[in-house]
Amino acid sequence: MSSQVNDTAEATVILRENGKMREKTLTMDTLNPQVKAVEYAVRGPIVTKAGDIERGLQQGQKHPFTEVIKANIGDSHAMGQKPITFLRQVVALCSFPELLNSPSFPEDAKQRARRILQGCGGQSLGSYSASQGVDCIRQDVAVYIEQRDKGVPADWDNIYLTTGASDGIVSILKMLVSGQGRSRSGVMIPIPQYPLYSAAISELEAVQINYYLDEDNCWALDINELHRAYQAAKEHCHPRVICIINPGNPTGQVQSRKCIEEVLHFAYEENLFVMSDEVYQDNVYSPDLQFHSFKKVLYEMGPEYFNTVELASFHSTSKGYSGECGFRGGYMEVLNLDLEVKAQLVKLLSVRLCPPVSGQAAMDVIVNPPLPHEPSYLQFHKEKSAVLGALAEKAQMTEQTLNTVPGIKCNPVQGAMYAFPRIFIPPRAVEEAKSLGMSPDMMYCLRLLEETGICLVPGSGFGQREGTYHFRMTILPTTEKLKVLLEKLRDFHIKFLKEYASLEEPKR
Amino acid sequence: MSSQVNDTAEATVILRENGKMREKTLTMDTLNPQVKAVEYAVRGPIVTKAGDIERGLQQGQKHPFTEVIKANIGDSHAMGQKPITFLRQVVALCSFPELLNSPSFPEDAKQRARRILQGCGGQSLGSYSASQGVDCIRQDVAVYIEQRDKGVPADWDNIYLTTGASDGIVSILKMLVSGQGRSRSGVMIPIPQYPLYSAAISELEAVQINYYLDEDNCWALDINELHRAYQAAKEHCHPRVICIINPGNPTGQVQSRKCIEEVLHFAYEENLFVMSDEVYQDNVYSPDLQFHSFKKVLYEMGPEYFNTVELASFHSTSKGYSGECGFRGGYMEVLNLDLEVKAQLVKLLSVRLCPPVSGQAAMDVIVNPPLPHEPSYLQFHKEKSAVLGALAEKAQMTEQTLNTVPGIKCNPVQGAMYAFPRIFIPPRAVEEAKSLGMSPDMMYCLRLLEETGICLVPGSGFGQREGTYHFRMTILPTTEKLKVLLEKLRDFHIKFLKEYASLEEPKR
Repeated sequence: MSSQVNDTAEATVILRENGKMREKTLTMDTLNPQVKAVEYAVRGPIVTKAGDIERGLQQGQKHPFTEVIKANIGDSHAMGQKPITFLRQVVALCSFPELLNSPSFPEDAKQRARRILQGCGGQSLGSYSASQGVDCIRQDVAVYIEQRDKGVPADWDNIYLTTGASDGIVSILKMLVSGQGRSRSGVMIPIPQYPLYSAAISELEAVQINYYLDEDNCWALDINELHRAYQAAKEHCHPRVICIINPGNPTGQVQSRKCIEEVLHFAYEENLFVMSDEVYQDNVYSPDLQFHSFKKVLYEMGPEYFNTVELASFHSTSKGYSGECGFRGGYMEVLNLDLEVKAQLVKLLSVRLCPPVSGQAAMDVIVNPPLPHEPSYLQFHKEKSAVLGALAEKAQMTEQTLNTVPGIKCNPVQGAMYAFPRIFIPPRAVEEAKSLGMSPDMMYCLRLLEETGICLVPGSGFGQREGTYHFRMTILPTTEKLKVLLEKLRDFHIKFLKEYASLEEPKR
Repeated sequence: MSSQVNDTAEATVILRENGKMREKTLTMDTLNPQVKAVEYAVRGPIVTKAGDIERGLQQGQKHPFTEVIKANIGDSHAMGQKPITFLRQVVALCSFPELLNSPSFPEDAKQRARRILQGCGGQSLGSYSASQGVDCIRQDVAVYIEQRDKGVPADWDNIYLTTGASDGIVSILKMLVSGQGRSRSGVMIPIPQYPLYSAAISELEAVQINYYLDEDNCWALDINELHRAYQAAKEHCHPRVICIINPGNPTGQVQSRKCIEEVLHFAYEENLFVMSDEVYQDNVYSPDLQFHSFKKVLYEMGPEYFNTVELASFHSTSKGYSGECGFRGGYMEVLNLDLEVKAQLVKLLSVRLCPPVSGQAAMDVIVNPPLPHEPSYLQFHKEKSAVLGALAEKAQMTEQTLNTVPGIKCNPVQGAMYAFPRIFIPPRAVEEAKSLGMSPDMMYCLRLLEETGICLVPGSGFGQREGTYHFRMTILPTTEKLKVLLEKLRDFHIKFLKEYASLEEPKR
């Protein structure tokens, strides 16, 4: 960084030729207060500090460890997972169509690439697509959903390709926010939640309505808690949306069919728009559980539900077995949207022109993978199973190891990519954190990072019941690295407990 | 589309089991009014209609033409422009690194790809990048800017990679909007403007301050008009930002150095944040004109300016000679941002995680193209010159042909990709349009589309002085197709004038 820029950026006032002060236009005082209110812990101060330490290590600085292990974000490839060959072949073929003449690419990858390119203007990934995405990819998404949901009809006119799932989620929330004061839109979100939701709610100045997941029951959603939260919120806002994350981020919980039916019935009765974040639909590890889509359950509840409840569900290239976060691919399916509102949604999306077309291509491969009779099937299947098998193993290892540590209690990691264990923090440590103006789990995670190089995200970034403390960790490091991480974490936790002279029993 | 979805989407109310009405949650009445206020003509009703006609033609419907010619959007590849080989080679190598072993890719492309991949987590395009983008790509951008600006220092810490330029523009505007009533942020934009600006201003509920470009002077920016607009706006809002588009969209004007200096002086005096949209910096066709970056001019005005004026400038992969719209690549350079505000900007960007990494790779090629001693240089240079040469030729042809038509007056297309000619619409046609509740240039463009298959955007979508009418057309169709377009347009215009029995002289 040049010192010139640095020095001057710090001065907010400078004397002008005419003697008047030249103030900065954009200061903390004049910044959009809704931007100021946004919080996003997954890339918060701990992660910034981890980056600083990493750079320090590279420059030879001494730390009590030789490597930073980042378990703060669901970024599979960064943790060493290899891309799915077939997906990358298709993207490379689309990017450089001369490769369609190369004998080293399999025919099924070429067929996918040709089809995608035919759907692009000028047969080029470099053209803008329609605002909703490339037609044939939207058609493939609809076919995928029909198969996933055992024949429940899917209409490709209801499919919108997006820039990752985040983009779709924010677009739908943006549509739903209106009113002032007591008629301001309220958005029901689970606690703990993925902080995109709270960040978008802050930015849109909507009202956040917390419903607490039941930690004592594997983080299940409790319908009575939904009613409680809704009734309480009605006093000061207009609840209009319920957001569900299934499988759960950060909880790792997989919802039961019964629970989903209860939520949908509730949404039907209370006229709520349903947003179901289903980006982890391929990440279910417990052999006795399965993913149920909100859409399929809605269908099974009968036409009175299926033809009325407004439901947006979200998927992404970033998670599942492919882990292609960098491509920013995703889709949403939106049911029962009023037709005029739909035109407004398309208009809103059109201002940003289109989602990245290479991300759309990556999404196409995920919904249209090689079939058993095709040449790439075996390799694809092998790669996919290896990723999901390893994740299942690491999910179990994480839960089991964490539960051997006194003062840590971890629910089963049934799905997704995260553990969200409860940690006991001794009262003296809580006091110390408070005196530092820090949440106790933030202090815990900071010390963990400084002493061991492990980067986790404090539970306070996701929300938790008052007086309880957690962290989120991903299960993405390689098995070997995850073992090291869990051992270091155990040693740190025991030392931490001792240091604060806590001989009392951890609260479970 | 299944009839089931269609039928039910139209019913906004349905009777529930319990006899209560089940209303839709999201209707035109409950939709976010800021979303409703957004307009984006580049993909507006004319373009929707063009799509309908195109599908009709494919299904054998009869029209007085056999093909829709889309000159509504700056989408080069869709109009037949071929990708730059080197760029696509680098992207393909990054997407499928096994190709690094292939002898059919040149060494300089491999070198670029290796460098980009080394900057990615796990050496994969599938990892999230940092919120500001991949470090080495930001470094390449800074080097590019220094070279472009003949040594003016550029700090890669000030570079942010973005999802196209639009994403950066909206992010900066979002930061700048605050206050209520008379202290609400005002945003100065040129008229005519690119409608992303007005759309973002609507969505953010900021105050739009129009400054009119001087059509009689080749659409130049007139500093007196800036003062007028500013003084008038101060009565009812707090002007905080000035946006400039150079080269101009839709005007095609290239700003003089003197004009830029005046704008910067004005911004300095009035404490305005400067946003310079420079996505057409490579698209200058008049041999006696050149692109001056706002940053370079600011530097040349001396440290009192260079170290104080807050300036964000935007670039993109979508325009220039590469035309890679679909990759959604771009960057912004932000100067003199307050350090705390900068942390807020990074936080805001982090919520969406990162721009698409393949778009970042495409951006890298544009700022780091083959050098004269490298194997791809000759082909790259040939392809680039061919694109820019053809555009220069079409810019001239468009202006000259349009100026032969009675009742059309077109300023020189000095740069960018558009002509924005003024069209004379006879009073009787104006009346007819008004009786149809339509702007006269919208009626004109609709009839043009229906009678000739040519798709343009009415001037009203960009803004124009009261009582004047325009359209925007791109110069992107192939030379042959552009000739056809211009001939059809001339014939249509003459017929249109005759039909409305306008024997009076067109107002020039």
